[in-house]
Amino acid sequence: ELSFNMGSLSVDEIEAAVRMLLSLKLLYKTTTGQDYQAGLPPRDLVLINNGTSKEEDEDFVDPWTVQTSNAKGVDYDKLIVRFGSSKIDTDLINRIERATGQKPHRFLRRGIFFSHRDMDQILDAYENKKSFYLYTGRGPSSQAMHVGHLIPFIFTKWLQEVFDVPLVVQLTDDEKYLWKDLTIEKSYEYARENAKDIIACGFDINKTFIFSDLDYLGTSTGFYKNIVKVQKHVTFNQVKGIFGFTDSDCIGKISFPAIQAAPSFSSSFPQIFNGKENIQCLIPCAIDQDPYFRMTRDVAPRIGQPKPALLHSVFFPALQGAQTKMSASDPNSSIFLTDTPKQIKTKINKHAFSGGRDTIEEHRKYGGNCDVDVSFMYLTFFLEDDDRLEQLKQAYTSGELLTGELKKVLIETLQPLIAAHQERRKQVTDEMVKQFMTPRKLAFEF
Amino acid sequence: ELSFNMGSLSVDEIEAAVRMLLSLKLLYKTTTGQDYQAGLPPRDLVLINNGTSKEEDEDFVDPWTVQTSNAKGVDYDKLIVRFGSSKIDTDLINRIERATGQKPHRFLRRGIFFSHRDMDQILDAYENKKSFYLYTGRGPSSQAMHVGHLIPFIFTKWLQEVFDVPLVVQLTDDEKYLWKDLTIEKSYEYARENAKDIIACGFDINKTFIFSDLDYLGTSTGFYKNIVKVQKHVTFNQVKGIFGFTDSDCIGKISFPAIQAAPSFSSSFPQIFNGKENIQCLIPCAIDQDPYFRMTRDVAPRIGQPKPALLHSVFFPALQGAQTKMSASDPNSSIFLTDTPKQIKTKINKHAFSGGRDTIEEHRKYGGNCDVDVSFMYLTFFLEDDDRLEQLKQAYTSGELLTGELKKVLIETLQPLIAAHQERRKQVTDEMVKQFMTPRKLAFEF
Repeated sequence: ELSFNMGSLSVDEIEAAVRMLLSLKLLYKTTTGQDYQAGLPPRDLVLINNGTSKEEDEDFVDPWTVQTSNAKGVDYDKLIVRFGSSKIDTDLINRIERATGQKPHRFLRRGIFFSHRDMDQILDAYENKKSFYLYTGRGPSSQAMHVGHLIPFIFTKWLQEVFDVPLVVQLTDDEKYLWKDLTIEKSYEYARENAKDIIACGFDINKTFIFSDLDYLGTSTGFYKNIVKVQKHVTFNQVKGIFGFTDSDCIGKISFPAIQAAPSFSSSFPQIFNGKENIQCLIPCAIDQDPYFRMTRDVAPRIGQPKPALLHSVFFPALQGAQTKMSASDPNSSIFLTDTPKQIKTKINKHAFSGGRDTIEEHRKYGGNCDVDVSFMYLTFFLEDDDRLEQLKQAYTSGELLTGELKKVLIETLQPLIAAHQERRKQVTDEMVKQFMTPRKLAFEF
Repeated sequence: ELSFNMGSLSVDEIEAAVRMLLSLKLLYKTTTGQDYQAGLPPRDLVLINNGTSKEEDEDFVDPWTVQTSNAKGVDYDKLIVRFGSSKIDTDLINRIERATGQKPHRFLRRGIFFSHRDMDQILDAYENKKSFYLYTGRGPSSQAMHVGHLIPFIFTKWLQEVFDVPLVVQLTDDEKYLWKDLTIEKSYEYARENAKDIIACGFDINKTFIFSDLDYLGTSTGFYKNIVKVQKHVTFNQVKGIFGFTDSDCIGKISFPAIQAAPSFSSSFPQIFNGKENIQCLIPCAIDQDPYFRMTRDVAPRIGQPKPALLHSVFFPALQGAQTKMSASDPNSSIFLTDTPKQIKTKINKHAFSGGRDTIEEHRKYGGNCDVDVSFMYLTFFLEDDDRLEQLKQAYTSGELLTGELKKVLIETLQPLIAAHQERRKQVTDEMVKQFMTPRKLAFEF
């Protein structure tokens, strides 16, 4: 028999309060996965929503949002620690050089692909004549692709060449239909248009399969079986924690991560790999896609599949600066693959954020800041010559090189690159698109 | 500047408590969709979880659980009110008779199919030479099907015959993989085995397509497109309300309702209907499946599709009584399609719950109770002759007919029915299964 000091509360009021408390405790447990303890604030409550703790001066990175308050861009070393991935260091780059017999790609030399998961294991196996396949993708949210969208494809093409391996490219037109105000038909049309730009990067038609989810899901039993396997092994609590989904999100968004996960397993492609299962997968992608593959790697052993390995790139900065967001709907936020030489020149001169000084005199005296200068950043992505890049850096930093001169170098680098891309894209026929997008046995040796 | 009486609490303790309170308010809002108000218990919290308010003496019905405390079984009139469907009354049965020129099936005459949605519109259209297609299904959780599983198929076969319409049958092997401790392979195997029992019901091979989700999803782009359309228009909050899913459920379960919804739209079957879209769909099913189709009907207009119409059946009672649950894992809970004449006899004599009296003397004096007698219930499902059934009812109620005699009638009714089913099932070849399960143009006139 217990007795409480209940003051002037009525029995009804107390019963209502107790019911409320019990409900709240249950909700608390359901939502946080922790038992409620009076007086103790919930552990890592923010973590449950975002997958990352978001503090005042910390960057925020998930597949839909990249936010930083730093003009230099996201702090990638911190991101490696937070995501639990590994840095691509000189040792690893040297190993890649030895394994392939090729000079490492400028994206490796310059830390543009900066983080990895299990790349050492890929190389261990490769050195023992055990090969792998590449998987990358794109969300076709519009017809217009910009130069930043090319980064994973340029690098993937290089990996395909130097390792001589097959590649699957997922176009998540279903994702774009779910997330955007788009019809299924429009989303699929964008997928096919984007496929042309991807093909124009020069992938080997005998070793590359490009697929639209809306299309391929209905033509491969292997794909859906892996999707449903992943979906059985991931709870709503988990995707809530990883992707920040809420109860008001549609069930399509909630189950979509399984669709991006499934191509990590070779059994999703019975036609491509001739029914061969458990082939190791390597995924080159921007680091914001990592949450999908952290989830995939968590599920893989539980469904008897090997974990995919990953190579992560930094984000491509907007013309306006590394802490602003590029947007396909703002034509001035980046250089598009359809831009004319004149548009490229105007955009860079007018919009590329400069790390130079306000006056020529000050610039000569104090020098420019390459760490925040977008023209210089773009050159690290696209100028192949290391010596030239280093010279530009020193000349700009010392004040010898003016902003206008640096921009001119970028303009002259990008104009021919984009013109050449446009030329190659013109050569991409509907017949070629059809061939790349037809499920068929790829050339490979495992 | 506000000032509170904070007693002996430290600033840290107060801050922790405030953070906790704010978190709980947020969780409360996220989970209930209501703003937290101190002292007021949450409105309709149970409603949010179950879609139905579950009171002491109310039945509980969802696709996984049917619960009633009444020996007569679920109160179906109450269910019609709660689900918002319409009663199949004499007028509607007469209309069906006029439209088809056939005597209404005993399941209609006896209220076994008792509830509907928009059946009047199906008949309006049919009378104006606008036809429709039938859609029903089964979750293949085991190889063994019992006589209760046949109810929707027996009725659907009759509908196919009298209306002369095509039929699609969904085998939700993906659902069973997600819900049960089954491999994908086992689940698919059960689907194929169950298909044989379904085919043995006598469906017209030229007008019937039977499909396994695991199979068909990978062979039809139309199906996946409708699934993703439904998935875009249903939120987690909605499936939580309708199906009682929780945050710990896997994302496969959460998104599954869209897969059961999609066959309600003819564009899911481009091969079957020759690309013809917006054909009206009629779904005969047990009432526990209604939540799926309430959701489907809610979504349909928003994705430009006609709402499917429905015909609902009562539940088939377990041998042990209408308030116990049949279970495929308990061989004594029902008559299985594989039972021998001897097994049928033993099961009925030993396990069929009797509405008779404890002694012959009492029975003769007070009579038996057909409302709770399982043998009599089974006879309403399987004895075709209305007069004979009425005679049995009167004789049993008056005490003239003893329990053993009633059971004998049931045994003699079921033995030949099941023997005939087994004979027809033997005739079902692998070639026929393949044909029924191959997407192909069905014979129809719309």
